Parts: sequence; structure tokens; C-alpha cells
Amino acid sequence: MARWQPNASERLAVAALDLFAERGYENTTVIHIAERAGLTKSTFFRHFADKREVLFGGDTMAGLLAGGIAAAPVTATPLEAVAHALDAAGREAFTPERREFSARRQAVIAAHPELQEREALKGLGLTAAMTGALRSRGVPDLPARVAAELGALALKIAYERWSDPASGEFGEIARRTLSEVQAVSAVSLR
Amino acid sequence: MARWQPNASERLAVAALDLFAERGYENTTVIHIAERAGLTKSTFFRHFADKREVLFGGDTMAGLLAGGIAAAPVTATPLEAVAHALDAAGREAFTPERREFSARRQAVIAAHPELQEREALKGLGLTAAMTGALRSRGVPDLPARVAAELGALALKIAYERWSDPASGEFGEIARRTLSEVQAVSAVSLR
Repeated sequence: MARWQPNASERLAVAALDLFAERGYENTTVIHIAERAGLTKSTFFRHFADKREVLFGGDTMAGLLAGGIAAAPVTATPLEAVAHALDAAGREAFTPERREFSARRQAVIAAHPELQEREALKGLGLTAAMTGALRSRGVPDLPARVAAELGALALKIAYERWSDPASGEFGEIARRTLSEVQAVSAVSLR
Repeated sequence: MARWQPNASERLAVAALDLFAERGYENTTVIHIAERAGLTKSTFFRHFADKREVLFGGDTMAGLLAGGIAAAPVTATPLEAVAHALDAAGREAFTPERREFSARRQAVIAAHPELQEREALKGLGLTAAMTGALRSRGVPDLPARVAAELGALALKIAYERWSDPASGEFGEIARRTLSEVQAVSAVSLR
């Protein structure tokens, strides 16, 4: 079985996490990260705008989610289209090989307020990307915003759940979480 | 009828908006704002951590929303408690006298990405405050998060609607918006 081969941006992210663990986030520079990954500083900046960004993979996730919504069947309801987006995220990004990386990444973010800020902004970007993709399907503004918010919440909770090695496959967790979120918003809030 | 008397933090916010309009956001300093308000720089920093913060009123809104949820009747469902929080916001913060200020404030924020970032983070703080207040009422984690997200979305949309001078009272708009958001998440996403 072929071993999973990280590409440049993933090598940089893994090197960054290792260095953050070894010497602390504050004491790690972009140059350290590039060196550890066996790459140059300019390669780093081709992939990421700054040190914080290395843990957030550029704008891949927003594109994945928007693409997943666009590719959902024409008959899909807004929330079904969002479920397709979460499936795409599981297939392309939250693969089993990346679970350990994700758990370590979460630990670093939890320990640094400036990384939490960046994560919060990324989350808003994901909501905006899903809202835009839903509108492009002809979903009116309010339902598009509501479906995107519920989808973003499900994504966040599913990611927390999936980081636990005892949990299952991301796509399955995400669909279950989305159902729970939808059930709660439909029933128990009344 | 007594004229509405702004306190120090409101005087600073009004002075800041005037200066942003006159000389641009980038060309306005904390010293300019304090001078225009007839106050000192140290008074400014007693109220706000930095120039951006002057448009976000510290953490008043988070406290208002959490207080509104805590004060809701024991029998209130999570979303009814959130409706109480939106009422409190309308009574204490989004009063008719402040509508014009809000519309001008929104225009400045829309023109400056760094202010949009701060607004985004403030929004997350409001969601967190509502989630915490709901949990304190004994609402389980998932329903608390869902109700807080829907509430934050309703607050945001209601605020946009209320900024239009042709709209009505904030509390009424907010309740109607919350109903719409809830109806959409209960029905049309299925």
C-alpha cells in the first residue's frame, strides 16, 4: 500500500506543527518552518501569506465546500446540498491519514488566541462561501444564510468529534451531526 | 422632552465617526478622536483598547444578550430565551436615537476590511455569550449552540434591516427575523 505523500503545503504544515511543539509557536519563524520542510522561504510564501496561515491551508476548504454545493443534484434542498459539501470535505481534506495532524493542530490553536482569531475568520469565510454557492443554485437569501450557518456549525462540531481517534469516518460523522443540528433547530427550540 | 445625552464612550464613538467621514479612517488617530470629543487620550483607553474598538462599544452587547437570556422566564424554550435577549438589545442599545449612528457606522465598517475582521470576531463573541447563557439555564450543549447561532444570525439580519430608517422598532424587527430564521430552518431545508 502506497504511503500518503504530503505535497509542499502539507510538508510545511507538518514541519510547522513539529516546531511549534518543540520550541513553541512564538519562537518559530517562517524560515525555521521552510528549513525543516526542506524548502525555501519563498516557497513558503507561495503557499501561505504568513506564519499563522500555515495551519489553515489557504482557501482550500472554502473552495471544496462551494464545489460540493455546486455539484449536488438539482433536486437537493439547501441542507442536502450542504451535506454534499461536508462529504466533499471528508473525501478531500479530512481523510483518515490526516486525523492525527488535525488533533495536534487543534491543540496548538487552542493554546494561542491569535490562532483562534484566524480560525474564527476562516470559519466566517466558509459560511460566506457556502451562502454564495447556495445563492448560485437559486436559493433565496434568508434560507441560503440559514443553511450555511447550520452547515458551518455542523462542520465545526463534526471536526471536533472526528479529531477523537475512536470516532469514524468524517463524512459519516458530518452527516449525522448535520441531522442533529437540523433536528434541534426544527423541534426542540419551539 | 430631554435630549438624549451621550456618555463618554458614546461621545468618543460619535467623534470617531465624524472624523472618519471627514479625514478618512486611516488618517484619524486616537488623539484626534479624544480631542474632538473634548476628552483625553487616557479616557479613550479607559473605554476602548484601540481605534478599531471605538465602533464596537467594548463588550456591552455580549453582556446585554447574556443578561436577556438569563432573565427569560424559566419556562422559555432556548429560542424564546434568545428572543428575550434580542428584546434587551433593542431596549438598551438599538434605540431609535441611535439608528442614524448605526447606519453611518455600518458604512465605515463596510469600507474597511480590518473593521470587518473586528466585527466578525465580535459576532463570534456574541454567539459564545449566548451559548454560555443558555447552558447556564440547563440547555444541553448542541441545542444551546444551535439556538445561539440562529440568534446571532437573526441579530445580524435584524440589525441590517433596522438600519433602514423606513423600518420599525428593533425589538419587533428582531422577533420577526428570528421567527423567519426559525421557520426556514424547521421547514424549507428538509
